[in-house]
Amino acid sequence: MESTAVVQNTKRESRKKLTIIDCDIHMPTIREAVIAYLPRHYREQIDTFGMRLPTQGAMYLNGAKGGIMQEQQFPMDGTPADLLAYFRKEHLDKYRVEHAILTGLGDYAIQTTPDADYAAALCTAYNNYMIDHYISGDPRVKGSIMIPKQDPLLAAKEIDRIGGHPGIVQVISSNGAEKPYGHRFYYPIYEACERHGLPFAVHVSMEGIGINHPPTGAGYVNHYIEYRMARTQIMMAHLASMIFEGVFQRFPTLKFVMIEAGILWIAPYIWRMDQDWKALRSQTPWVKEPPSEIVRKHVRFTSQPIEIPPDESLFLPLLKSMHGDTNLCFASDYPHWDFDHPFKSFPKLDDELKDRIFYQNAAELYGLPPRRSESEAENEAEGTTK
Amino acid sequence: MESTAVVQNTKRESRKKLTIIDCDIHMPTIREAVIAYLPRHYREQIDTFGMRLPTQGAMYLNGAKGGIMQEQQFPMDGTPADLLAYFRKEHLDKYRVEHAILTGLGDYAIQTTPDADYAAALCTAYNNYMIDHYISGDPRVKGSIMIPKQDPLLAAKEIDRIGGHPGIVQVISSNGAEKPYGHRFYYPIYEACERHGLPFAVHVSMEGIGINHPPTGAGYVNHYIEYRMARTQIMMAHLASMIFEGVFQRFPTLKFVMIEAGILWIAPYIWRMDQDWKALRSQTPWVKEPPSEIVRKHVRFTSQPIEIPPDESLFLPLLKSMHGDTNLCFASDYPHWDFDHPFKSFPKLDDELKDRIFYQNAAELYGLPPRRSESEAENEAEGTTK
Repeated sequence: MESTAVVQNTKRESRKKLTIIDCDIHMPTIREAVIAYLPRHYREQIDTFGMRLPTQGAMYLNGAKGGIMQEQQFPMDGTPADLLAYFRKEHLDKYRVEHAILTGLGDYAIQTTPDADYAAALCTAYNNYMIDHYISGDPRVKGSIMIPKQDPLLAAKEIDRIGGHPGIVQVISSNGAEKPYGHRFYYPIYEACERHGLPFAVHVSMEGIGINHPPTGAGYVNHYIEYRMARTQIMMAHLASMIFEGVFQRFPTLKFVMIEAGILWIAPYIWRMDQDWKALRSQTPWVKEPPSEIVRKHVRFTSQPIEIPPDESLFLPLLKSMHGDTNLCFASDYPHWDFDHPFKSFPKLDDELKDRIFYQNAAELYGLPPRRSESEAENEAEGTTK
Repeated sequence: MESTAVVQNTKRESRKKLTIIDCDIHMPTIREAVIAYLPRHYREQIDTFGMRLPTQGAMYLNGAKGGIMQEQQFPMDGTPADLLAYFRKEHLDKYRVEHAILTGLGDYAIQTTPDADYAAALCTAYNNYMIDHYISGDPRVKGSIMIPKQDPLLAAKEIDRIGGHPGIVQVISSNGAEKPYGHRFYYPIYEACERHGLPFAVHVSMEGIGINHPPTGAGYVNHYIEYRMARTQIMMAHLASMIFEGVFQRFPTLKFVMIEAGILWIAPYIWRMDQDWKALRSQTPWVKEPPSEIVRKHVRFTSQPIEIPPDESLFLPLLKSMHGDTNLCFASDYPHWDFDHPFKSFPKLDDELKDRIFYQNAAELYGLPPRRSESEAENEAEGTTK
């Protein structure tokens, strides 16, 4: 925690005025407006059989009704524009969010059905809805491409379809999976990511649901809290798979973003990977650098739900050990119940580190412009809050 | 690392003379001598069909041939007594091991067959072999009961059969599993553990093999190094399952020992469990204490393969944060290739902490007598090395 005392007062002052990038936002959707984008035969099937999607809520509890903070009351009987207006007021303006990365709401369930063609059609519908109603509605809103991960060739097609849109900043998939993401099955997705310069993000969701594997290497867990712990375990498996299958050697410009899996586990995990790699590197000769170095170059992670050690003095050394200074990006997970408040969730940080975590790291990752000056931010905030 | 400088010199001197408890030892076995303990119909089946056991080696590499350090050359063409004599010389005497806890060698494969009756017969054979040839052959050797985890009632029967033997100190099962170990399916095992005052230990092995679940929540991994990383993830799942299913409330004297899953992950894992438990405790109201407190009271862990942070100054604070001072027990994993040397694997420790990790914690866990004085140790060592 060195040097924080010195900057503490100025920090308190400046904190309110700094704009941020929020890397994990879940806008609700008006389902009928999404369905309107589907081809007629799927609309008819939905009329007759319903959405036909396995969901988490059918197996596990959550932390709040619908997973949403009680005090957030989106006007769900309104239009998509009403939802966006509510979001602007309750989040973008309130916390001076300069860029908000949308990372899916109910739509991960699309990735749990065995019907890849239906999944592809639903992804297209959700992505179009997102572009038309949210990204086009506010310049601060950026989007992630939901893909039919069941069929990587169809996924690549969807990435090629909209990957060039200026409001699209990444490709996203659920943590729940049929195979670890380093598997060659997924390579068409990474080829498409590289074609468009988009990171590949994995967001915790749908572990053990539908076609995905049971959520742990010992099968199904029972309680929601075990389920939350299991999510991190699966992200660990994806990370090791990406590294040791050689994904980053084959796709040298690819960035892998781990969203909502916690962060402090990354430190001991990379220590262990480095240690084992030293002993076993002859078995994966294509991995030519220590895993920690691959993580530094290719892997980014978002902060929520952030763990704070009981001994807070451990936070900064652990963060440093996992390259958090360059690789950690702030996320609030708005409007979910376990929302991390942009100004209250972190231990004290010095100005430079705060700037990197709350803005620069994400700006570099997603190719976003430098932070506007404070005065510009003032002006623009007034312009957009009306 | 406070106060270590002061004690460094005395420590260097005393280190050689201290006896230790080694909590993870894998004695090889003479297979024919094990088979001799089986009922005739199983011996005949083995003659005709072979051992009929799925094994790790059929799917994954290892770090060395047979998983054994190259320089260890057990006389495998000899008798069980020859193996024990080799073990005495190469390990017990060499490192002044006062108690050595046997934790299985090839026998975890028993737990991967769907044939629970065959598994039970094999466990009985292995356990009898272990008692007759190893435990009875040297007072320093202690044993773990291998159980047919496929059928917890048969497992309990085996625990009741030999749980009272003075050389038996715990019940052991593989990390690879059909269900997380907090599941009520396993309760007959914990009832038997409590009846005999034996800890329940889980040792990494057989993840994804035979009837066990695939080794990660995203399915099968490819390389041995990913497999090693996955093992820790499964141990995490077992730990959360034991805590949140309420095993320790139902079995208040039960101790759970995590063997060979690494250690430093435990710190951020319990921070996260505590944090989530605070928010979600209404969903598991039988868990009345923070998970970290349950870990302190009921969970023990062995050290090998120990991770050392690149910034070594983090080691002791992390160890403290996970109650390592009372709950960590030294293990070498002899004779496996990733053996941790008793005197060289750890960062510097002060005398008290060293004493706890290398002796007292295990002595309390397994009900072993206090360390003999150094002079007694000298005398006895001379007596047993002949």
